[in-house]
Amino acid sequence: MKKEKLEVGDTCTHNVSFTQDEVKKFAALTKDTNPIHLDEAYASGTVFKRPIVHGYLSGAVFSKVFGTLFPGIGTIYLYQEMKFRRPVYTGEKYIATFEVTEIVEEKNRANIYCQLLNSENKVCIEGQATVMHLEKIG
Amino acid sequence: MKKEKLEVGDTCTHNVSFTQDEVKKFAALTKDTNPIHLDEAYASGTVFKRPIVHGYLSGAVFSKVFGTLFPGIGTIYLYQEMKFRRPVYTGEKYIATFEVTEIVEEKNRANIYCQLLNSENKVCIEGQATVMHLEKIG
Repeated sequence: MKKEKLEVGDTCTHNVSFTQDEVKKFAALTKDTNPIHLDEAYASGTVFKRPIVHGYLSGAVFSKVFGTLFPGIGTIYLYQEMKFRRPVYTGEKYIATFEVTEIVEEKNRANIYCQLLNSENKVCIEGQATVMHLEKIG
Repeated sequence: MKKEKLEVGDTCTHNVSFTQDEVKKFAALTKDTNPIHLDEAYASGTVFKRPIVHGYLSGAVFSKVFGTLFPGIGTIYLYQEMKFRRPVYTGEKYIATFEVTEIVEEKNRANIYCQLLNSENKVCIEGQATVMHLEKIG
């Protein structure tokens, strides 16, 4: 990216994975202690079979990429939607993908479609985001 | 809530606040090290003036409430949107508010409108959520 402007069609991918220790820390931090994330015995009796990563922990990869890489520091986050399609598990590999779908030049805004894909290339989370960047968008 | 079913018009409120230590831990956990969250000197030169809480940390209160209180354990999270309207700062008091706007009985799903309000009752984050609960919805 560097000093170029974002354009429609620009893409970015970013590898991510999660550990059960990270899930525990996230639960402690947010007080989101739903046992579906923490309790193997409980999770084994649900449709997910195993503990799943909090959607706000797995989805945070979108924020991380916007704020640090694409478009990077200076990004102002305006909107994010998350459609939770499939569970995200610890110890597996995921890829966050991004594609710029619209630029609103006069507002320095970009709409970016985000997905979190599992190793079978299936969508676990997807949704539109809107970010603003005074230098890199518009 | 207990054993009753969610109904359209049901509401819930939940107090929440954030510390800079929590923001640091969230940044370490998610690798979202955007200086707008961590660096006072950097933040003072932005429109926000002070470091702001990550949207995925402040917004996680929605997930916490769904998974632990309203409707509670057993909730399956299907959708969340977040419109970031105003910054969320550490050391201030916020209230997360929830209102059931639609029940889809045959799918055990509820649409719930979520807001994170600051102490002046102004909206910092707002957005629709969809959750499923086999016992408490539908």
